[in-house]
Amino acid sequence: MPEITRRADRLPGTRYGNRPTMKDVAARAGVGLKTVSRVVNGEPGVTPDTERRVQEAIEALGFRRNDSARVLRKGRTASIGLVLEDLADPFYGPLSRAVEEVARAHGALLINGSSAEDPEREQELALALCARRVDGLVVIPAGDDHRYLEPEIRAGVATVFVDRPAGRIDADVVLSDNFGGARDGVAHLIGHGHRRIGFIGDMPRIHTAAERLRGYRAAMEDAGIPVDDRWMSLGTTSPERVRRAAEEMLSAPEPVTAIFTGNNRVTVTVIRVLAEQSRQVALVGFDDIELAELLQPGVTVVAQDSAALGRTAAERLFRQLDGTLVAPERIELPTRLITRGSGELPPAD
Amino acid sequence: MPEITRRADRLPGTRYGNRPTMKDVAARAGVGLKTVSRVVNGEPGVTPDTERRVQEAIEALGFRRNDSARVLRKGRTASIGLVLEDLADPFYGPLSRAVEEVARAHGALLINGSSAEDPEREQELALALCARRVDGLVVIPAGDDHRYLEPEIRAGVATVFVDRPAGRIDADVVLSDNFGGARDGVAHLIGHGHRRIGFIGDMPRIHTAAERLRGYRAAMEDAGIPVDDRWMSLGTTSPERVRRAAEEMLSAPEPVTAIFTGNNRVTVTVIRVLAEQSRQVALVGFDDIELAELLQPGVTVVAQDSAALGRTAAERLFRQLDGTLVAPERIELPTRLITRGSGELPPAD
Repeated sequence: MPEITRRADRLPGTRYGNRPTMKDVAARAGVGLKTVSRVVNGEPGVTPDTERRVQEAIEALGFRRNDSARVLRKGRTASIGLVLEDLADPFYGPLSRAVEEVARAHGALLINGSSAEDPEREQELALALCARRVDGLVVIPAGDDHRYLEPEIRAGVATVFVDRPAGRIDADVVLSDNFGGARDGVAHLIGHGHRRIGFIGDMPRIHTAAERLRGYRAAMEDAGIPVDDRWMSLGTTSPERVRRAAEEMLSAPEPVTAIFTGNNRVTVTVIRVLAEQSRQVALVGFDDIELAELLQPGVTVVAQDSAALGRTAAERLFRQLDGTLVAPERIELPTRLITRGSGELPPAD
Repeated sequence: MPEITRRADRLPGTRYGNRPTMKDVAARAGVGLKTVSRVVNGEPGVTPDTERRVQEAIEALGFRRNDSARVLRKGRTASIGLVLEDLADPFYGPLSRAVEEVARAHGALLINGSSAEDPEREQELALALCARRVDGLVVIPAGDDHRYLEPEIRAGVATVFVDRPAGRIDADVVLSDNFGGARDGVAHLIGHGHRRIGFIGDMPRIHTAAERLRGYRAAMEDAGIPVDDRWMSLGTTSPERVRRAAEEMLSAPEPVTAIFTGNNRVTVTVIRVLAEQSRQVALVGFDDIELAELLQPGVTVVAQDSAALGRTAAERLFRQLDGTLVAPERIELPTRLITRGSGELPPAD
C-alpha cells in the first residue's frame, strides 16, 4: 500500500486578514525587503546562505506571496488553472466540473488546458498558466518530473496534483486507490470461478495503469494463480490496439474466460469485442461508464469518484492559498465495486 | 432555414509577412499613428468622425493588431481561449479536442473555461481570457448579447462562435443544422407510423433547443399532424425534470408512442425511463451517445459532428489571425441520421 500521511494541518493565526507579510519574513531572516522579494520571485543576486535563511523564515511563518490582497491590488479576477490529460475522456468531465465549482465558490475562475499525455506539453501549459498569473494549479500530470514547477511554487502558486502523483517534488497529491480497486475487481472475478483472467490497460509509464496492473498481480498471487504473460497487455487505449489485445487473449489455445479492463476507454472497446463473441466472457472494468446498467449484461465496474477527486484537490488548493496547510499530503480516495452482471458470469468452459 | 452566406474569403497579399501595419491604416485614414492606436485599443480622445474613418481604413486593409510579430515581440506563447458551456457534457469533449489539435498545429496553446450556461459567467470568463492575452477566442455562447466583446475584437482578438450564434454582433459562427436535423429525425418517426410524438428538450432560450423544437414542429406540420401542447416539454436537462416529463407523456390517456429527445443529456435519461416501460416506445435522440449501438434496441440518433464543429471554428479563427478572411460568415454543418433500432419501432397501439 502507498504510504498515506495525514497531519494536523491548520496553523493558528494564518488565515486571511492576519497573514505574514514579506516584512515579517525580512525581519525574521534579518535581511532587507528587497532580498526577500528576490528570493520569492526567483531573481538572482542572493547568496545561497541568505536564500536558505529567507526560505526558512518563509516556511516558519507560512508566508505566501499569492494573497488575496495582491489579487485585489492588481484588479485581476482570481483564477486557478487545471492541467488535464485529455479533454475528450469522460472521466475528466466530472473532475473538471468539481474543480470549477470549488473555484467559483471561492470567487475564482477556472482555466483549463490539456497535455494530451505529453510531458513537454504539460510543462509548457502549466508554465503558460503561471505566466498568465493563475493563483494556483491543479495538475493531472503526464510527466514524472515536476521540478520545473519549483520556482512557481516558491513564488506562491498553490499546487495540487490529482489522479497521478507528482514526480521529484514534495506536493499535495489526491489519488484514487488504484491498486486496491484493481485488486478487489480481479478478486471478484476469481471469486466467480475464473482463473484465466486477462488484464488490458493503459501505457505502463502512467502511474494509474501501473498501479492497477499491480493490483491485478496481487489478486492473482493472493489466489495462488500463476499469471501467463500473454494475459497482460499494456499500451495505448486506441480502439485498434485494445481490440487486437482482446482478440488475441480470446483466441489463444487456452483463452481467458474473463477480462479486467484498466480504464473506461479500454472498457468501451472490450464491450464491443465481447458483444461479437459467441461465448460469454466475464468483464470487470476500472471506471464507471454511462448507461453501463442498461447493457446486456450490465457492466460490473470498479468506480472512482471522479468528482470527489476534483473537489478534494481544489479544496486543498484553496486551503494552501488561505495559508491553512502546513505540509504536503498524499490523500487516497476509495473506489467502489458496482456489480451489474458482467463480472458475475461464470467461466464459459 | 437560417440564411447562410459564403463569400470568397481570401484577400490577396494579406498573409503572414506581408500584412498591413498601423502605419498603413494611418496613411489611408489620413490621421496620425497615435489616433489609430487609440481607436484600436478603444481609448478615448477620438471624434466619432475620425473613428469612423480609421475603422473604414482598418476594414479596407484587413488590418489586425494581433499579428504573430506582436506575439513574438512579447516573448509569449501564442494561445487561444475556448469558452465552453459545460465541462462534463460529453458532446463538448471531441469539440474541445479538435480545437486543441488545430491550435497545436498552429503552435498555440488552448486554454478553456466553462460558463456553466450562465451569460454573466460567459462574459467574465471571455474577458478574463482576453486580459490574459489570448490571441483568439472560440465561444460557445450562454448569453445572447456579445457586444461586450466589441472592444476586444477591435483590439485584434480573433473571435468565432460555435454551436450557437453570436448575439447582437457580426461574427463568424459555426453551427450544426439543428433545425434540419430535428425535422429529419421526427419525419423518420412519422415515416414509421407514429403520430403522437413527444419532444423533450433543453431550455427554450438556448438557440439549439429552440431550433430543434422548430424542426419538430415543421416535421409534424409537413405531415399534417396537429401538435398537442402536452407533447412538448422544454426545461433543464436534469434527470429529475426529464424523467418527470417523459413519464407524464407516457402515462397520459392517449400516450405518445415515440419520443424525440433534444440532446444527449435528455436522451440518456429517456433511455432509462423507456427501459422501465412495459410497452415499447420509439426513440430518436439528437446527438450520438457512446455505446448506443449496443443497447437493446440500439438507439437511433441525429448525430452532429462535434469534432468538425470544433475544427471548423478553430481553423476559421486562425485564418482570421492570418488576415485571410474579410467578412464574418455563418457556416452550417449537416447532421446525420443513424438508424439502430429504437427509431424504427412501430407504434405500440
